Amino acid sequence: MKITSQLADFAAQTQSHDIPAPALRMMQLSLLDWAAVGIAGHDEPVSRLTRDMVLAEGGVPQASLIGHATKVPARAAALVNGATSHALDYDDTHFAHIGHPSVAVIPAALAVAQARGLDAAAFQVAALIGVEASIRIGIWLGRDHYQTGFHQTGTAGAFGAGLAAARLMGLDAAGCAMVLGLLATRASGLKSQFGTMGKPFNAGLAAANGVEAADLVARGFIANPDALESPQGFGPTHAGQNRSEGLQSIGKEWMFESVSHKFHACCHGLHAALEACLILAPLKAGQIARIEVATHPRWMTVCNQTEPMTGLGAKFSYGTVLAMQILGHDTAVLDSYSAAVCVDPAVQALRARVQVRADDSVAETAARVRIVLQDGNSLDATHDLNAPLSPDLRQQKLQTKARSLLGAERADKLWSRITAQDDIEGFADYLLP
Amino acid sequence: MKITSQLADFAAQTQSHDIPAPALRMMQLSLLDWAAVGIAGHDEPVSRLTRDMVLAEGGVPQASLIGHATKVPARAAALVNGATSHALDYDDTHFAHIGHPSVAVIPAALAVAQARGLDAAAFQVAALIGVEASIRIGIWLGRDHYQTGFHQTGTAGAFGAGLAAARLMGLDAAGCAMVLGLLATRASGLKSQFGTMGKPFNAGLAAANGVEAADLVARGFIANPDALESPQGFGPTHAGQNRSEGLQSIGKEWMFESVSHKFHACCHGLHAALEACLILAPLKAGQIARIEVATHPRWMTVCNQTEPMTGLGAKFSYGTVLAMQILGHDTAVLDSYSAAVCVDPAVQALRARVQVRADDSVAETAARVRIVLQDGNSLDATHDLNAPLSPDLRQQKLQTKARSLLGAERADKLWSRITAQDDIEGFADYLLP
Repeated sequence: MKITSQLADFAAQTQSHDIPAPALRMMQLSLLDWAAVGIAGHDEPVSRLTRDMVLAEGGVPQASLIGHATKVPARAAALVNGATSHALDYDDTHFAHIGHPSVAVIPAALAVAQARGLDAAAFQVAALIGVEASIRIGIWLGRDHYQTGFHQTGTAGAFGAGLAAARLMGLDAAGCAMVLGLLATRASGLKSQFGTMGKPFNAGLAAANGVEAADLVARGFIANPDALESPQGFGPTHAGQNRSEGLQSIGKEWMFESVSHKFHACCHGLHAALEACLILAPLKAGQIARIEVATHPRWMTVCNQTEPMTGLGAKFSYGTVLAMQILGHDTAVLDSYSAAVCVDPAVQALRARVQVRADDSVAETAARVRIVLQDGNSLDATHDLNAPLSPDLRQQKLQTKARSLLGAERADKLWSRITAQDDIEGFADYLLP
Repeated sequence: MKITSQLADFAAQTQSHDIPAPALRMMQLSLLDWAAVGIAGHDEPVSRLTRDMVLAEGGVPQASLIGHATKVPARAAALVNGATSHALDYDDTHFAHIGHPSVAVIPAALAVAQARGLDAAAFQVAALIGVEASIRIGIWLGRDHYQTGFHQTGTAGAFGAGLAAARLMGLDAAGCAMVLGLLATRASGLKSQFGTMGKPFNAGLAAANGVEAADLVARGFIANPDALESPQGFGPTHAGQNRSEGLQSIGKEWMFESVSHKFHACCHGLHAALEACLILAPLKAGQIARIEVATHPRWMTVCNQTEPMTGLGAKFSYGTVLAMQILGHDTAVLDSYSAAVCVDPAVQALRARVQVRADDSVAETAARVRIVLQDGNSLDATHDLNAPLSPDLRQQKLQTKARSLLGAERADKLWSRITAQDDIEGFADYLLP
């Protein structure tokens, strides 16, 4: 069976009541996280620039913008909210997809759901189906696609966004296939933008392209419905590996359940050490003689600045972030990483006692931490970011992160709204500043 | 020198007074042609669907839509006008570029010029620079890019559209380079859409992407300014051949001067025979015993229907179009190709006397025609579409085509407006139905 047909059937025919509760719960958690990191990033330059562009264009008030009270057309809202929610690179990641599923798909689903006055349950199901499809397409395109230079967040993401939008517009399987075919000529995104505003922009492109394609197909647009996979289709022309394993068990297993979330607003290379150290908490700085970190060698040149003096430098410093965490600075909050924290005597004293060494027996996603106490005892902990996280613990950690970013009251009300599935506009209202 | 720098310098620094008159005249001729084929195509399905989408979005009235009195934001107008002007596939073509330069670039330049209230001279110069750049990039990407499955009209076209827009926005060379870099992550277009609405849509994508990128860079967007040509940039990731000859003599020679125009609203394979036959005109049907056509073998399976019964069939029939031309039907007009003409006894009688044979000594772009008269004499003519056309003859032929499509009065007034360079809104008014 062609993958276009499988994906189109999946998007059009999956019944809400067939979706397992853990998959839907994961989407709700990612919604909370997406909203929190989006709001936290609403004033980043890429967010402001794309928002200013669509506000200058104006148009029918169909869908909400993160961080601004004016509504804009759905296609424009998707563009801005995709870029905005990926601006901090603090959103969820799926390692098999090799991309960021939520920032490409949720903005498209939300914009269409608002534009069409649909309910929150339909929105959440469509977003879940969209991210699941984008993960499957990311796997189908494969690592060659990524290594060649394409950015699955933008490319595979567009197809997922398009299917989410198509489902919300009520397109049948043939319509969903047409959306995939049209997106074959539109989807884009290069890794060579990494380190610039172009990276978060790729997420916005995916979302906007998805809304646009679904809208046009809903109006009767005829594209080549085989163009995702045909000989000169998107996959073959974009170094796609055509890995059929991407489609295995679609609709039966939900790969989105293995999405990863970030719990610290710093370089990903530091997260495993922070999590390992958390296992040993709470500790007082005065108890600690030294902290030994064993990490994969690749991180030594990435995030082992020993005496950073800026907020940005702090985000790439084992010593600084571990000291911050032990001293009670919230590592989930962007503003915690500041020049001030770098010159704080307590931070400086503690980070001087952090010793980092490369160990190629440690996975890239892991760290081993030993805390040697003043009394001569020592505590050991290991963490691997790939280790499964129980749903309850993940929820607890994501709620903590959301409270750090939004304030406790707002974060808790937002979570209630998401789980109640009661009102899409009520959810969208939480995106305003 | 990097091609990004060359292109950026070319777009930002070329002075209007340095542009040779023949190049500007060619742009003016293409403007006339672009407007004529755009208006003729304004009611095609792809035109209506994309127009309906942006009209439903609404927004600030910045720029005109072909065939509709409502103005829309510049980015939206570029999308619709690109698709609309390519809907009939009756617009200009550049064989070295391997694409359609005007439909990607003119809509972007016009939309930005209108949105910014610029004058017609600046618009025409920017459009010329944009098409010239798109041709150079098309050559730089090369035939491998096309053969792999990419559609230069959409891909190279976006970069040309972006440079035209950037120039009109007053960006300097660094800004123009940034526009190229941002477009690297946005430009798209696949040939696998050929035969569907996706093909003309690719022209709209190019135009809209160009406006969007220039607008964002004008606001301060930071992309990777090397992303057109860097190791994982657009060229290397899209089967680009990196043919530096594309950049040779840029700013000194104007390759747009060798653009081709279509003078008949039928399959391109028939055009050389029609032109050869025109050399022998006028002839009365009654004088003709038979017409012998020698054509390249590839066309035998493409456009040699002997007894078509529909308008579409007529467009792929040597016998029918030659009979139509001799009998005075205007082959430049779309409506001439009808079921009625197929059953016209005079057409049927004459097309029965047309004999087509394959001859691999004839170029793909050429045809040899021999008309054997009833009196036993015969007339011979050969035409190659690649043969240079004198500017005056080209102007005469394009004005004839525009009159056929728009009516003589409107076509002549439009041409006066273009050559007077007096008022951009005055030009745009001619795009309305």
